Amino acid sequence: MIRFEHPLSERVRSFLRIEHLFNRFQTESMRQEDSPWPHHLALFTLFEIMECAGRAELKLDLLQELERQRQFAAAGRIQGAQAALSAQLQAVAENLQGIKQKFGQHLRENDWLMAIKQRMLVAGGTSPFDLPAYYFWQRQPHAHRLADLQKWAATLLPTQEAVGMLLAILRGNTAAADCVAQKGSYQSSSLAQSIHMLTIEVGMQYRALPEISANKYVTHIRFLEASQEHARGRPVTGDVPFKLMMCSFDPI
Amino acid sequence: MIRFEHPLSERVRSFLRIEHLFNRFQTESMRQEDSPWPHHLALFTLFEIMECAGRAELKLDLLQELERQRQFAAAGRIQGAQAALSAQLQAVAENLQGIKQKFGQHLRENDWLMAIKQRMLVAGGTSPFDLPAYYFWQRQPHAHRLADLQKWAATLLPTQEAVGMLLAILRGNTAAADCVAQKGSYQSSSLAQSIHMLTIEVGMQYRALPEISANKYVTHIRFLEASQEHARGRPVTGDVPFKLMMCSFDPI
Repeated sequence: MIRFEHPLSERVRSFLRIEHLFNRFQTESMRQEDSPWPHHLALFTLFEIMECAGRAELKLDLLQELERQRQFAAAGRIQGAQAALSAQLQAVAENLQGIKQKFGQHLRENDWLMAIKQRMLVAGGTSPFDLPAYYFWQRQPHAHRLADLQKWAATLLPTQEAVGMLLAILRGNTAAADCVAQKGSYQSSSLAQSIHMLTIEVGMQYRALPEISANKYVTHIRFLEASQEHARGRPVTGDVPFKLMMCSFDPI
Repeated sequence: MIRFEHPLSERVRSFLRIEHLFNRFQTESMRQEDSPWPHHLALFTLFEIMECAGRAELKLDLLQELERQRQFAAAGRIQGAQAALSAQLQAVAENLQGIKQKFGQHLRENDWLMAIKQRMLVAGGTSPFDLPAYYFWQRQPHAHRLADLQKWAATLLPTQEAVGMLLAILRGNTAAADCVAQKGSYQSSSLAQSIHMLTIEVGMQYRALPEISANKYVTHIRFLEASQEHARGRPVTGDVPFKLMMCSFDPI
């Protein structure tokens, strides 16, 4: 099975990107190896996070949604342990509000990091002779480098925590249906306004990639063949069974 | 000990960058892991190699230097097994000449790869929903992805081989001297014209990064303190013992 998540708003797009990057950052930072490359990728990813999560509105978006969710929990509209969830949402919001500086500000103020960031955009630009200081850092013990990466990421973590919590809620509030795309194509009536993401689960053996268009009139899903040659594969001609999940920030 | 190589010509700079990138590509391709990230970095590195080694003159530079070395070997100016070395140089040159297409041409012609290359330059641009086809590939078994990477890199390998051989020769033809940078600074008279690279070995414990300026009048090496805060550390004030190696393509 492979699961494709299709965000229906700019806000969810940005949450998914940020989550994706933080996952990569954490995995690569923690990889126990003497090789400098996992930490090279971790640092590159940290710079991507900076760019991606640097929008001023992001923090406000997160705080508003956390507060809305807290009210749902307080009003008992979410099943399970309301009080615990409400307290957790509040803690996450407080952690996020506790960061007073602009997202990634301390990274932008570190000349050393900014020099590496700039050179990473040049092909081969971080070779040892181009950036001896970075080469020296890459030769430091793993634990030393990991501590640096964790220090640099510290003020970004409340953002990761908030994004992670909201996406867990979004992935939890779902209505699912088993569907079949006949001759690779599936169409259904309009979605409720409160649906923020569509998730599609399909067997790997179909080698099928969903192409989704969803607007207020119609939801159309067409499956294309996975190919490593063409940017856009040919349409699948056989039937494709799949599971469609409609995800919402609002309790379903 | 840490070893800093300082190229003295654009040609050697480009050889070192290409070697560095191929090393990273190979290490990350071969890393036995289910995680998609080593192969993400390998692919990113492949695109860097494409950019870096795409100059039309590179092949000519390599062929000329290989031929010059073959003549040295044939004339007995290189110690050791001349005949074997001469044959090896010839084989490497023939492999390189055997590639008729432009460097990386088959990569440029693959729409799927070019779509990924373009998205990799956008922060978070290769998230699963941005590039479902890439996400599908990342979910393939390690062996499948490795085979793809090796297929994509195949026509680039003769370039790697030629660069590797010439750099091995360059690193082998050296004159070395034990030096001390008094109060962090070292100066000596001009270099012979035939010196193509300076290599400096210094103990890690000095945390010293060499800043080298070498022209036809004078060689000046100043050591700066390694720092992870500032793009350029403060000058080292103590004495720094180091080993200076002068490397040449010509037999010394």
